[in-house]
Amino acid sequence: MRVEGKPYTTIWTGEDGASIKIIDQTRLPHRFEIIAISDVEAAARAIAEMWVRGAPLIGVTAAYGLALAMRADPSDANLERASAHLKATRPTAVNLQWAVDRVRRLIESAPPPQRFAAAFAEAGVIARDDIALCEAIGMHGLSLIKTIAAGKPPGAPVNVLTHCNAGWLATVDWGTATAPVYKAHDAGLAVHVYVDETRPRNQGAALTAFELGQHGVPHTVIVDNAGGHLMQHGGIDMVIVGTDRTTASGDVCNKIGTYLKALAARDNNIPFYVAAPSPSIDFSIADGVREVPIEIRSEAEVTHISGLSADGEITRVRLTPEGSRALNPAFDVTPARLVTGLITERGVIKANASALAAAFRERVAG
Amino acid sequence: MRVEGKPYTTIWTGEDGASIKIIDQTRLPHRFEIIAISDVEAAARAIAEMWVRGAPLIGVTAAYGLALAMRADPSDANLERASAHLKATRPTAVNLQWAVDRVRRLIESAPPPQRFAAAFAEAGVIARDDIALCEAIGMHGLSLIKTIAAGKPPGAPVNVLTHCNAGWLATVDWGTATAPVYKAHDAGLAVHVYVDETRPRNQGAALTAFELGQHGVPHTVIVDNAGGHLMQHGGIDMVIVGTDRTTASGDVCNKIGTYLKALAARDNNIPFYVAAPSPSIDFSIADGVREVPIEIRSEAEVTHISGLSADGEITRVRLTPEGSRALNPAFDVTPARLVTGLITERGVIKANASALAAAFRERVAG
Repeated sequence: MRVEGKPYTTIWTGEDGASIKIIDQTRLPHRFEIIAISDVEAAARAIAEMWVRGAPLIGVTAAYGLALAMRADPSDANLERASAHLKATRPTAVNLQWAVDRVRRLIESAPPPQRFAAAFAEAGVIARDDIALCEAIGMHGLSLIKTIAAGKPPGAPVNVLTHCNAGWLATVDWGTATAPVYKAHDAGLAVHVYVDETRPRNQGAALTAFELGQHGVPHTVIVDNAGGHLMQHGGIDMVIVGTDRTTASGDVCNKIGTYLKALAARDNNIPFYVAAPSPSIDFSIADGVREVPIEIRSEAEVTHISGLSADGEITRVRLTPEGSRALNPAFDVTPARLVTGLITERGVIKANASALAAAFRERVAG
Repeated sequence: MRVEGKPYTTIWTGEDGASIKIIDQTRLPHRFEIIAISDVEAAARAIAEMWVRGAPLIGVTAAYGLALAMRADPSDANLERASAHLKATRPTAVNLQWAVDRVRRLIESAPPPQRFAAAFAEAGVIARDDIALCEAIGMHGLSLIKTIAAGKPPGAPVNVLTHCNAGWLATVDWGTATAPVYKAHDAGLAVHVYVDETRPRNQGAALTAFELGQHGVPHTVIVDNAGGHLMQHGGIDMVIVGTDRTTASGDVCNKIGTYLKALAARDNNIPFYVAAPSPSIDFSIADGVREVPIEIRSEAEVTHISGLSADGEITRVRLTPEGSRALNPAFDVTPARLVTGLITERGVIKANASALAAAFRERVAG
């Protein structure tokens, strides 16, 4: 997608063919800074410090990181060491473990001198696969937007509400929840996005607003409290959110607050779609509310916030009284009954066990 | 309620019997600063600059302001001028208009030399009436808390979720939504409050957390996104919120985001109560969603936020990308069907037209 008028992906290879470049997402939306990564230590740091975030992007970064480790020292010992190092950066990131294992399995039987090139190429394949997956979600979601547009006066924008950042910044390109929006915008359809700021980390206000704005998509930032009111008054035509984990029965674990928007959508008969790439579907669990463990993050994310001060410095300020405690659950679970449909790379499917099993037969036992 | 161990109200008379003191609420929770008000200009400024806020407190401040005007110049011309000046500070504040008119009607037929004393005394009556009203709400709400406590293991706290600040800082003392909590806490019942931070103005994180903490009530600040998740997991026993305006049919217009919590409470079978002093009930309208005009406030409240920086300065920072617009509806309407009960000064009543009419017969046209 575009930034400052130029097309970007979130990760790309350097001109030397032996390094990668990323965007330091911790500085967005206030600074757009590109960082060159030439060794595994820098790749691990980029993941650990959250310069890159989002499951697909973390996976690709780790894959390239393992390749860079092989460039420095292609020994078996270093393959072992670098794999462990990368996996330890975000221990709960399933995609990270998967990407490291995929590259490692591919190269461990290869002669050491060939390992760097093979790993570097495989990381590129993972990146391109992710782009294709997001584009497929985008095309299926575009059909939904077109259908809604057809029911509105000509030229009236389709108003999409989204939560958090399931945008291209969380993937390699296109994003998941944003892919239908970009496809619609690029196709010349009038589309406008209400962006939940998404406290506590404000990924909506910081990242989704940034990427939509840079790509030229009309959008409006709202506080997380406002979506229900807008839905009551016809301001929202559809909701599209991402998912961190989708259960076999279609429950959706996503950024905290998603459930509240799903309730409001249901109460106002507004379609609530989840952009769900199949790697997010966990066929081993069914009841999301009972079975998905919810990460409790630092209180400081609630009690403090960062922004750009009047003198142009990124500054952290405290919002709460000294002595007040905070609780910071990072995700919630939206029951499948509130989900209109899952936008997967194989099409839009119902959020229930039989529809999911039918669409992904190869992943369901028996 | 207590601050730094001492009992306070939000407004009190000076030792000279001819001035008042208030708390500068714009500096909370980071600074507790008391301001002496000796003339009508200062009273008007306190209202306009939101050093005082909350309908009851604004009304009392304006009443005292009119008294102070009479101390300086008790002429008819000044009575007229001061009334207009005070009313213009917050043109949409119904309570402000009402309080100024009440004092003015009382004193306009009195000889000028008696006007200051009469007005000053009447302002005190308005303040004491508000305290009594809040205490009555507190006692009725206490019964609800006791009933819930009786169904829990002995000593287990009743977990109350509240939104925004319908606390003592918005009234003269006790608050509305917080009154049952203070009554329970002071009676030795175990009660714990989850405080929605309440973006965009963060009255929960700044004011409710401050006043609960200072009074010694256990509480935890959460982002507005988190309440639904806590309800799904049994973390909330009841919701108590305030109301800016309650319709004849029991619809509740309150701070933006209240509706989302009501939906989540309903979805999880958790009682959702509204502390509704009768002055908030508007018997002239029925359908809240269609009839209550919603104030759209400044974009800057969404795009920027203030807090305490590491060097101890209250600092304003920008959260959104330059160029991103924001929309800032200040209130939403919770339909009566989602409200378990209205805690009024006359008891807890159903949120419907017949129950409201029965409880407040004198206000409903025969």
